[in-house]
Amino acid sequence: MIIPVTLKKECDNSYEVTIDDLGIHGFDTKVAIVTNTTVANLHLKTLLSRITAKTLNVIIIPDGEEYKNFKTIEYILDKMFEYKLDRKSILIAFGGGVVGDMTGFAASIYQRGIDFIQIPTTLLSQVDASVGGKTGINNKYGKNLLGAFHQPKAVYIDTAFLKTLPQREFNAGFAEIVKMAVTFDAELFDFLENADLSNSDMLTRTVAKCVQLKADIVSKDEKEMGIRAALNYGHTFGHVIENETNYSEFLHGEAVAIGMVMANKLACELGFMTSDEASRVKRLLQKYDLPVSYTIKDIDDFYEHFFLDKKSANDKIKFILPKHLGHHAITSEISEKIVKKVLKHFGDN
Amino acid sequence: MIIPVTLKKECDNSYEVTIDDLGIHGFDTKVAIVTNTTVANLHLKTLLSRITAKTLNVIIIPDGEEYKNFKTIEYILDKMFEYKLDRKSILIAFGGGVVGDMTGFAASIYQRGIDFIQIPTTLLSQVDASVGGKTGINNKYGKNLLGAFHQPKAVYIDTAFLKTLPQREFNAGFAEIVKMAVTFDAELFDFLENADLSNSDMLTRTVAKCVQLKADIVSKDEKEMGIRAALNYGHTFGHVIENETNYSEFLHGEAVAIGMVMANKLACELGFMTSDEASRVKRLLQKYDLPVSYTIKDIDDFYEHFFLDKKSANDKIKFILPKHLGHHAITSEISEKIVKKVLKHFGDN
Repeated sequence: MIIPVTLKKECDNSYEVTIDDLGIHGFDTKVAIVTNTTVANLHLKTLLSRITAKTLNVIIIPDGEEYKNFKTIEYILDKMFEYKLDRKSILIAFGGGVVGDMTGFAASIYQRGIDFIQIPTTLLSQVDASVGGKTGINNKYGKNLLGAFHQPKAVYIDTAFLKTLPQREFNAGFAEIVKMAVTFDAELFDFLENADLSNSDMLTRTVAKCVQLKADIVSKDEKEMGIRAALNYGHTFGHVIENETNYSEFLHGEAVAIGMVMANKLACELGFMTSDEASRVKRLLQKYDLPVSYTIKDIDDFYEHFFLDKKSANDKIKFILPKHLGHHAITSEISEKIVKKVLKHFGDN
Repeated sequence: MIIPVTLKKECDNSYEVTIDDLGIHGFDTKVAIVTNTTVANLHLKTLLSRITAKTLNVIIIPDGEEYKNFKTIEYILDKMFEYKLDRKSILIAFGGGVVGDMTGFAASIYQRGIDFIQIPTTLLSQVDASVGGKTGINNKYGKNLLGAFHQPKAVYIDTAFLKTLPQREFNAGFAEIVKMAVTFDAELFDFLENADLSNSDMLTRTVAKCVQLKADIVSKDEKEMGIRAALNYGHTFGHVIENETNYSEFLHGEAVAIGMVMANKLACELGFMTSDEASRVKRLLQKYDLPVSYTIKDIDDFYEHFFLDKKSANDKIKFILPKHLGHHAITSEISEKIVKKVLKHFGDN
């Protein structure tokens, strides 16, 4: 199945997402695969058997969000120079969101930008991160604060890679599926409440549906000037949680799950959502063993953290709130008082 | 005078170069000026008197090509976070090519890209570097090997800043003017042979002419897939010279001057140029005290260095050669033997 991501015609950066057909690729350029230790052990052999290139090298980075930093980027870039990649060479990101974000970023700044291809191996990256061209790294100020918009040349998604994914990571990826359903697609939400994603047909259907939603959103708003920001539902809160816990306690999707529950509380407070709808979201997250509670140590501190998040422009915090199920509102007009009130009572039930 | 840089319409990155009218600017966003110690001492007060903004900060970096590296980029980015710049903030590059390249690069990766404005204060950056969106840094493998294409939002050129420029730097900038004349504009070359650039009208005319040429080239080929590569005339050789001498012996424009003389030798060897034309170029460079000779220690080493230059794709070296005066050829088809022969005899006259 092929899903096009149609961007502005003249900018030459439209591409296709191919689902469940990895294919065989012969490149007449130099190619380097960037992957991490875990994915290399499990799947590198499979990938190498599908690719031929003028020269083919593998760059292996350590596995984990804590390595998503400048140091790893410099390591990748050094290897690229060592392998004498040129402006026509292609980088392949083979792994989850961290590998994809860093590979894309390295590609975007190597000799002022070369092409890269995404072959995502986690649920999170298959349904969300691999499509849309957001690349980057974390720094001491927060997540994804440095990076570039750099669209991949192609995305190949094979759900077979998910068979080796640890359940906890699968579930974390599921949080991003819930995110899309709640903000954009009530029908998908209903489907998810009853779906069994251990069934590979249902899983592929779900992945394809999310990619389609993501492709539509990115086509409308590549650089996140408007509607694309809705994909940050749960993330404004989630990023603060990840930052407060040093990116070590929660997986990204887990922090987003808590963040969505927080956003829902705020939505309920403002009358955007009924408490019954909020409960349905919470139940769906819990069905996949995702965390839905978090102890805020210091509410003022937590609130202050928002301002380091890149989604806040001109000192106003942008919140993405569900409007019932399947719709959303993007607003920068929520008072500090109301946000803090919701944060204060977050642990109440 | 206003010169438009017209890029692909849908990509929203066209802009204007304003010459000799710095104007007064009121920004309703946060602004940070990036400049170096030298320019700050000479001209920061002037600039600050022309700008108001929501918040206005100054980021001062050390002066010199040797600081054009990742460490300085990290310093600039850290300051940007410290000043809590957001996605709508604007960075102003106030200085020469190094400041412009690094400011543009920092802007391109801060929160996946924010706007920046170029206010070039050297001849080199006024006639060339500030227009066209090439940003980046050097690393141990060579010059400008990391970076991004990130067009400025606007460029303001005031030749009054050149009054404090050391003569040596002025002359180095002149090399880039010669570059454009030789490859694109015979009339400009004739004009330069007789012009007195200490006359401010002639200087402004020359700067404006170069900006117009550059704007036309960039409009046709933003990402250097074709004709824009011609602006690397003298640079393929020049970069190797800069690299071999650790960026400490020659200013960029000086290395380019030598590089152009080398390229001309090659052009003469191939019958693209007469030795009389090559002599005219050499004389014009010498009139501005630019170096035209260089001792190559090891020809094989020198040749090997080309392959680290990003302009060489797929292991072929791309040479930009003048075709008489005012025209050029871009070719990857020159044999190693001929290049080495020319290099061998470079010191002969």
